Amino acid sequence: MPKKVGVVMGSFSDWETVRPAAKLLHSMGIPFEAHVYSAHRTPEQAAVFSAGARAAGFGVLIAAAGKAAHLAGALAAHTTLPVIGIPVKSDALDGMDALLSTVQMPPGIPVATVAINGAHNAAMLAAQILAVEDAALAQRLTENRAEMREAALEKDRDLQGMLFATPLQKQ
Amino acid sequence: MPKKVGVVMGSFSDWETVRPAAKLLHSMGIPFEAHVYSAHRTPEQAAVFSAGARAAGFGVLIAAAGKAAHLAGALAAHTTLPVIGIPVKSDALDGMDALLSTVQMPPGIPVATVAINGAHNAAMLAAQILAVEDAALAQRLTENRAEMREAALEKDRDLQGMLFATPLQKQ
Amino acid sequence: MPKKVGVVMGSFSDWETVRPAAKLLHSMGIPFEAHVYSAHRTPEQAAVFSAGARAAGFGVLIAAAGKAAHLAGALAAHTTLPVIGIPVKSDALDGMDALLSTVQMPPGIPVATVAINGAHNAAMLAAQILAVEDAALAQRLTENRAEMREAALEKDRDLQGMLFATPLQKQ
Amino acid sequence: MPKKVGVVMGSFSDWETVRPAAKLLHSMGIPFEAHVYSAHRTPEQAAVFSAGARAAGFGVLIAAAGKAAHLAGALAAHTTLPVIGIPVKSDALDGMDALLSTVQMPPGIPVATVAINGAHNAAMLAAQILAVEDAALAQRLTENRAEMREAALEKDRDLQGMLFATPLQKQ
Amino acid sequence: MPKKVGVVMGSFSDWETVRPAAKLLHSMGIPFEAHVYSAHRTPEQAAVFSAGARAAGFGVLIAAAGKAAHLAGALAAHTTLPVIGIPVKSDALDGMDALLSTVQMPPGIPVATVAINGAHNAAMLAAQILAVEDAALAQRLTENRAEMREAALEKDRDLQGMLFATPLQKQ
Amino acid sequence: MPKKVGVVMGSFSDWETVRPAAKLLHSMGIPFEAHVYSAHRTPEQAAVFSAGARAAGFGVLIAAAGKAAHLAGALAAHTTLPVIGIPVKSDALDGMDALLSTVQMPPGIPVATVAINGAHNAAMLAAQILAVEDAALAQRLTENRAEMREAALEKDRDLQGMLFATPLQKQ
Amino acid sequence: MPKKVGVVMGSFSDWETVRPAAKLLHSMGIPFEAHVYSAHRTPEQAAVFSAGARAAGFGVLIAAAGKAAHLAGALAAHTTLPVIGIPVKSDALDGMDALLSTVQMPPGIPVATVAINGAHNAAMLAAQILAVEDAALAQRLTENRAEMREAALEKDRDLQGMLFATPLQKQ
Amino acid sequence: MPKKVGVVMGSFSDWETVRPAAKLLHSMGIPFEAHVYSAHRTPEQAAVFSAGARAAGFGVLIAAAGKAAHLAGALAAHTTLPVIGIPVKSDALDGMDALLSTVQMPPGIPVATVAINGAHNAAMLAAQILAVEDAALAQRLTENRAEMREAALEKDRDLQGMLFATPLQKQ
Repeated sequence: MPKKVGVVMGSFSDWETVRPAAKLLHSMGIPFEAHVYSAHRTPEQAAVFSAGARAAGFGVLIAAAGKAAHLAGALAAHTTLPVIGIPVKSDALDGMDALLSTVQMPPGIPVATVAINGAHNAAMLAAQILAVEDAALAQRLTENRAEMREAALEKDRDLQGMLFATPLQKQ
Repeated sequence: MPKKVGVVMGSFSDWETVRPAAKLLHSMGIPFEAHVYSAHRTPEQAAVFSAGARAAGFGVLIAAAGKAAHLAGALAAHTTLPVIGIPVKSDALDGMDALLSTVQMPPGIPVATVAINGAHNAAMLAAQILAVEDAALAQRLTENRAEMREAALEKDRDLQGMLFATPLQKQ
Repeated sequence: MPKKVGVVMGSFSDWETVRPAAKLLHSMGIPFEAHVYSAHRTPEQAAVFSAGARAAGFGVLIAAAGKAAHLAGALAAHTTLPVIGIPVKSDALDGMDALLSTVQMPPGIPVATVAINGAHNAAMLAAQILAVEDAALAQRLTENRAEMREAALEKDRDLQGMLFATPLQKQ
Repeated sequence: MPKKVGVVMGSFSDWETVRPAAKLLHSMGIPFEAHVYSAHRTPEQAAVFSAGARAAGFGVLIAAAGKAAHLAGALAAHTTLPVIGIPVKSDALDGMDALLSTVQMPPGIPVATVAINGAHNAAMLAAQILAVEDAALAQRLTENRAEMREAALEKDRDLQGMLFATPLQKQ
Repeated sequence: MPKKVGVVMGSFSDWETVRPAAKLLHSMGIPFEAHVYSAHRTPEQAAVFSAGARAAGFGVLIAAAGKAAHLAGALAAHTTLPVIGIPVKSDALDGMDALLSTVQMPPGIPVATVAINGAHNAAMLAAQILAVEDAALAQRLTENRAEMREAALEKDRDLQGMLFATPLQKQ
Repeated sequence: MPKKVGVVMGSFSDWETVRPAAKLLHSMGIPFEAHVYSAHRTPEQAAVFSAGARAAGFGVLIAAAGKAAHLAGALAAHTTLPVIGIPVKSDALDGMDALLSTVQMPPGIPVATVAINGAHNAAMLAAQILAVEDAALAQRLTENRAEMREAALEKDRDLQGMLFATPLQKQ
Repeated sequence: MPKKVGVVMGSFSDWETVRPAAKLLHSMGIPFEAHVYSAHRTPEQAAVFSAGARAAGFGVLIAAAGKAAHLAGALAAHTTLPVIGIPVKSDALDGMDALLSTVQMPPGIPVATVAINGAHNAAMLAAQILAVEDAALAQRLTENRAEMREAALEKDRDLQGMLFATPLQKQ
Repeated sequence: MPKKVGVVMGSFSDWETVRPAAKLLHSMGIPFEAHVYSAHRTPEQAAVFSAGARAAGFGVLIAAAGKAAHLAGALAAHTTLPVIGIPVKSDALDGMDALLSTVQMPPGIPVATVAINGAHNAAMLAAQILAVEDAALAQRLTENRAEMREAALEKDRDLQGMLFATPLQKQ
């Protein structure tokens, strides 16, 4: 069985954005825990969780936060596990603040940053990391890729049908 | 005597940028300590320093950091003293990353952010905070303002002299 | 009793954004006044208010303005009290204009800038400033922190319950 | 004789940037005064100068400032003369802070903003404004345009000569 | 009677944004014409209009355009009358494209740029320009300022009443 | 008959944005194919399509993609046909990510980038490219320009009528 | 022989940036003319050149300009030939102003925009456009691609040699 | 022995930026290969390398590229190994183009993005990924953290000595 993924969000209001990560991990059979820990309101809990994560059986941590998004960096400061950061788009600046706060980490403490609101990709990246030494999971990832490819090609066929069936002027 | 100001920088390389803060505090007779504590490389030291700062006689903390500048926020998470953040301009993005990482704090944990590389103003703001209940320091601030005004007016007189003495074409 | 906080907004339409500041000050028992003074439409009133603020018993000023947000700087030019700036998000540029106009102050005249639309944090910072020399207020801030921490942990427990009770697919 | 132009800079260090404005006004025979008045360090002087400008024979004001560039707006708040703003590029953010602080003025108090460091154009715009009712000055502007056109065409001819005379590989 | 103001928009869809300019000019008794001329779809009409504007009795031109907003610059290239540019916010980039395309004019051909969607201020600036030599219009501008100040102070009194009458918790 | 245009979108969800391109090509009698090929999910199909495009009778390729918009560049890497890129505005960053990912191509592999969501202009540019050696198509483009000009002038006449018929206050 | 390419720059000072375009066209045997025409200082010459370009044997126009870079759009307004825009990086805003002014064209008048200072790619794109109906030129482009690929692979081999020959610590 | 890390750069000119990654991998005893493969000039080599990477014993890929930085995404499209992207700062836009082109990947194909020019952190992240199942490497990472902490604390002690030894005015 693969190691666990820890999914941490800075605020419960981020759950809507984070849920696709939980869904993908669940669908891939990767065990995970989800927590609300804030780098600013519950810094000790975040630090304790991160510092103990490897011993507790976690293999990867995912952190989602908006605005001055310090959470991923705060977790990364207390563990040498890979930490994935999801910059969350907030009500101003279109997510640029969270992106820069997450990705521009100083030398020595990396955060693996994915796209703004990219929870699905954060989970996919976690799965890829766990699959480096897990052939069965790697196989599932390969199958997932094939399904994505097939779905895209299906969409291409749908488009051909649509263009053929309906005059462009009426679409 | 006013309370102490704690000046914390995330890296020793920030000292060049931070020094004007130390100079202004020194010139105003405000006691201060300066430290290199990193939110990511020495998070415990930063947390311990901040958590104990009020009891240790500090009245204000100043934090200077670049890139994903979490330091001010990390200090603010462990104290209810006012924390002033100096976004430090780094080698990319012209300081915008540090500015957004410092100022866009979530509700409940403010950071009093000054301009990019604004160390002088960080110290001035610290002095203003300490002067709220310190009439002597407030008086020094008033005198400082008068000096600034006088210096600006002097510059205006210099300009008049220069425009009068030298034909514009030759300047 | 703590000193008063002056809450100034550039336009009555900013009241919606500013109100959380008034609410927090009220809930903490900090006396405050609120005013509509514009750096551009009523510059004299703004200057007079700021210049007389210390004598009138104010300890901190808060200024909220959007677009080319000069109000905080205009107040700061006439007082040595700490001035906190709230950049207000307007109908274009997502608040970036107000942020830069507020935070990038020249040497000598700092503005303590909080997040875009960060009225709650502006009041919290004002309380922190007044609490430097006010043990009772400092105690209230410590309690407030504990409540914030407890609320965050409660949210974490809620999340655990939710994840346990409802299959992820159905959420 | 045309009315005077008032050229105000926030700091003497802006003179280097502002000088092309003075040179153009001088070369067009437009009388001007230049001053160092700061919206933040000498706000009263700036206000008094602006409030009295029309009566003192000024027709247009030009204001140059960097960072949180409030100067043009501060002048505009005290006069109904047209105020032209030059955003000055500073050591961070490439002048974007000064541009937004100058141009994004609230309804009722416009600032006629020119390009970052656009002192030459500020003076040209001032001349255009004064030329609305001054046929002689308008004539000088028309001649200036013709000279600009001729100089550009001369450059085109130079380029043809250069391309003809020197093999491209050796340039 | 003051000279006419020419209000040009790049597309009829800008009329909604431009209308406040027309209203202010109308309310001040300043004659104006409004036209739809595009720098790209009807460049000749724009050029002819601008080149003949001074002779046709215009004193100022206003140009409103979005995206790659070349209209103000295109008019400015064909006249030495002052040209005011209104950057129009479009469906992407929040108006930043139109702002930079309007304000960053090369030396020799200035555009007096106002805020994004700042049609009211464009008209106010036009009035200020026409008032340089028109005492009656200058007087109207002074009265307008006084009304703005009075309206702002009225809002301040309203706020005091509101704060007095309604407990903050219920607002 | 002109060569075909290949219209490729990275995701079927881009069809809404891309459709104006298809409509314009159709209305001009330019044959085209539309496909859903992703640079990341179906890279082989994209490469094969592009590598074979010239031989298959295509003259121009159009690629529309959002976020890290690699599609246009990926097509351009496998063909020497001109490739036009449409940056698609996505749910964060207002299309700036797609614009920079599309336009900032390295030396040797250009992408002809049009405006964010500029599908209509992408098709127009494709038509212009095909018309370089196709006099009939060039003639259709000239007629199209004339229609655009006439429509703009019609709008100007409509505006005159509207301003004449309805008092400005009532609009 | 292929049609001519017209290379237009807004200022002679852009020649340094534009020269790589001239060099590539020259090396590919594509005839070209280069001109200094400004959208603002010599708008008539720019318009006349563009309007007559197709008849004069041009197949593609390239326009390079900085700041509020209207030149490409101004040429595009007077021709239905494809117009390629090179945004030139200027002394402020890092070329973002020129990029947005060039690429964000309104519907109907496209500009094929390449990277900031991307003169080499502008010429490559011009060659690709001319090669749509010119098999010999297409062949040259294919060879050029092969050379680029070979040069890149050569660099990879160089890197292997370097890594093998010199201990990493000494590099 | 840990799996290999593949370090790919889009251009040999990126080697200066990438070298810190190679040095860190070397110092940690992690085997690696470095290659120059371009997403645009040698797309097949990049695809073949990536598609075969897992079978060839690679555990992680690192990709460095500037401008429209597609390389990391192009590798990620052909493998399910984790791919780390280093956005390289180029001569315009301060690295923002490369950052957005690297991080804003579409759902399904993540790129683990580190800071602009963050080669050291890219290698550290690769080591963290390989250490998930490699206790010896995890131990080395823990030791590295301790060294970083010790070095930071040493810098703090240096600062104390410096502040004690040299009057601040003379620094």
